[in-house]
Amino acid sequence: MVGDPGIAVTSVVRAPGSFTARTVAGVRSETVRSANLSTILRELHFRGPASRSELVARTGLTRSAIGALVGELVKAGFVDEQRASSDGSPGRPSPVAAPLAERNVTVGVDVAVDSLGVAAIGLGGNVLHSIRVDRPRARIDVDATIDDIVAMVRDVERLLAPECRIFGVGVSVVGLVNRTDNTVAIAPNLGWRDVAFGTRLHHALGWRTEVVVSNDADLAALAELRRGVAAGVRDVLYVWGEVGVGGGLISRGEPITGAAGFAGEIGHLPVNPDGRPCRCGAVGCWETEIGEGTLLERGGRSPEGGRDAVDALLADAEAGVDAAVEALRAQARWLGIGLAGLINVMNPSMVVLGGLLGRVFPFERDDVAAEIEARAIESSRRGVRVVTSGLRGDAPLVGAGELAFEAVLADPMGALTNVTSRR
Amino acid sequence: MVGDPGIAVTSVVRAPGSFTARTVAGVRSETVRSANLSTILRELHFRGPASRSELVARTGLTRSAIGALVGELVKAGFVDEQRASSDGSPGRPSPVAAPLAERNVTVGVDVAVDSLGVAAIGLGGNVLHSIRVDRPRARIDVDATIDDIVAMVRDVERLLAPECRIFGVGVSVVGLVNRTDNTVAIAPNLGWRDVAFGTRLHHALGWRTEVVVSNDADLAALAELRRGVAAGVRDVLYVWGEVGVGGGLISRGEPITGAAGFAGEIGHLPVNPDGRPCRCGAVGCWETEIGEGTLLERGGRSPEGGRDAVDALLADAEAGVDAAVEALRAQARWLGIGLAGLINVMNPSMVVLGGLLGRVFPFERDDVAAEIEARAIESSRRGVRVVTSGLRGDAPLVGAGELAFEAVLADPMGALTNVTSRR
Repeated sequence: MVGDPGIAVTSVVRAPGSFTARTVAGVRSETVRSANLSTILRELHFRGPASRSELVARTGLTRSAIGALVGELVKAGFVDEQRASSDGSPGRPSPVAAPLAERNVTVGVDVAVDSLGVAAIGLGGNVLHSIRVDRPRARIDVDATIDDIVAMVRDVERLLAPECRIFGVGVSVVGLVNRTDNTVAIAPNLGWRDVAFGTRLHHALGWRTEVVVSNDADLAALAELRRGVAAGVRDVLYVWGEVGVGGGLISRGEPITGAAGFAGEIGHLPVNPDGRPCRCGAVGCWETEIGEGTLLERGGRSPEGGRDAVDALLADAEAGVDAAVEALRAQARWLGIGLAGLINVMNPSMVVLGGLLGRVFPFERDDVAAEIEARAIESSRRGVRVVTSGLRGDAPLVGAGELAFEAVLADPMGALTNVTSRR
Repeated sequence: MVGDPGIAVTSVVRAPGSFTARTVAGVRSETVRSANLSTILRELHFRGPASRSELVARTGLTRSAIGALVGELVKAGFVDEQRASSDGSPGRPSPVAAPLAERNVTVGVDVAVDSLGVAAIGLGGNVLHSIRVDRPRARIDVDATIDDIVAMVRDVERLLAPECRIFGVGVSVVGLVNRTDNTVAIAPNLGWRDVAFGTRLHHALGWRTEVVVSNDADLAALAELRRGVAAGVRDVLYVWGEVGVGGGLISRGEPITGAAGFAGEIGHLPVNPDGRPCRCGAVGCWETEIGEGTLLERGGRSPEGGRDAVDALLADAEAGVDAAVEALRAQARWLGIGLAGLINVMNPSMVVLGGLLGRVFPFERDDVAAEIEARAIESSRRGVRVVTSGLRGDAPLVGAGELAFEAVLADPMGALTNVTSRR
């Protein structure tokens, strides 16, 4: 049969900012069919509703193959297909396929320094429901954290449609995470070390669906790449700074994970090796110069003052108070020094500043630019834009939901066997 | 026809350390056939001679497809196929295909700070013939350099077999290279700026074959990844240091090029922002602390002393002369500081030190390890090995030859239309 999706063609994943470019080996048509379903669902998830003609153009699959594959996705409840009104061009109007957001969700969880967030993310990427609760900064008990998360997830779950299916849970943690076993290796700001967070939350939720855990900066970068200012950009340096500083490095549209998933610890670049002691045990790491504590201390405030103290410092700076202005200038100098080094190493076309660093950047733009001008090689600095995150504090939460969508996007039909239903 | 290579399967490139993982889109069988020829030639080039059975196992192609494809490569002069003696296993012995090195070559050129190198590299990766001539360090005229290279290439060409075909020329330059147009953006040690080196050498040689130009550290990393200690390693940090310091970053088996090919300028990480002025115009770049000039100066010698002065310094250090020992210790400290930072950023499983840094490392091992221990996060430093390059000074030359093989490996039959023959 011409256009049988089973033997149509190979799958090429070209979703903008896709985190997994996959190739398909082997000779079995079942594999190819599954890969083609994956390709179409990715297109709809990342780029929104599309007509059959658009899907033909984007995927290289034949029109009849697209028809059969979309039909399968409709039957499986992933996609809704509606007949489009004619756009005036000759021929039959092409039906438009759209992801069914309310029926297919993942849950994103954000374990931050001073808050917990939980959200339901629909297929297509919209945040359907979201809760965030503040917590005091402290060494926080793992069990208590898990109890709080489970309660928040139940609250979100009640808001979901009755026919909704939950495909997975993604967790962002402010710490180093081993992606191979979803363990938190170390989270200095929470006082955690070697915590099997993924497994423990999985048991506490009692769901069949998978729980995947990753680092907050990596997930913020993922969100930015898929849903934010960096959508479609191939070489991105994402710098996420709050108390500590982490990074997400994107090369050719894919994340640099490193050998064990620990890449991106840009907060621990030694920029001032005889400088301040760092929580990591070293001296003069970048985050000792640009982290929240040092900013507050330079501004004459308690380094433990947190978000409120930062707000007060920024208000002072707007009012022209010297101590605040100077604190921001000092931070700007070191921010620019580190960015210049990373621009030399990575040659990104975009640098995205998130978290605290996104908030302070409007005050620091000129000083940061001056350091980059002085220290980054011309060839690389010519081609780079420095911007702030549009997603702000919710970037790790959105990224966690996106991470949990990976499995269903990779194998939509396989994911159906491992789903948690509302009823 | 069963096993027709035209419709067999998709191509999946899995050569260890392959620099281009390619996916194949589209529905035309000609594309698939070409991709499958490419897959087999890559296997033979990177992993050496293989029997048909081995090729079946490695590529996922059917036995009859392999037979037809190898037959095409034999006919086109890329491959020789010999009947293997039986290995004692049941059934017919499987013929062994081997790359024809003497008949299919590329030319590698190395424009270094103090020498020029030219080599002929055979299909399969062996250096067939190689010449190197020393030059004084100075601002060197581009035309004179091109004249010297052309003369050296003619000398190498005379040594090639009469039936030999030259598929391309790869050039390594100690400078920043724009890979999109083979232009040297800036080479401070040669005094070059915005030199269209690829185009000019192409005209001077008068060959139809392409001339591709890249940075010496990037090409040294490529050679190390394909033919050296890093063969098969997926996350590698290659540090190439002589007068300046450059790097090749490998993530998941592929190079991090950055948006315009300028990534890897790790010599310009700011490690000591109030330190020594750098040739790049900034202050305190990593190469100002670990480059050859500073090593010599710390050892009480002229920073312009070059390779001979370094040899003398190392001899002094072996004899226990204080100034030399202290100079190496100071270099070791800064080498460790920068490596720790890059290990935090990249989480590599292997760090390869090449050039001067490879030569000094045996003297500096303990001090470098101590800095990494103190400054790299435990999760990343646990999984990393620091080793020295086995290819030594010829790594950029070998890498240049490998770079020139890219086009023929990507499309063997297409490359035949653009070849330079000895006769």
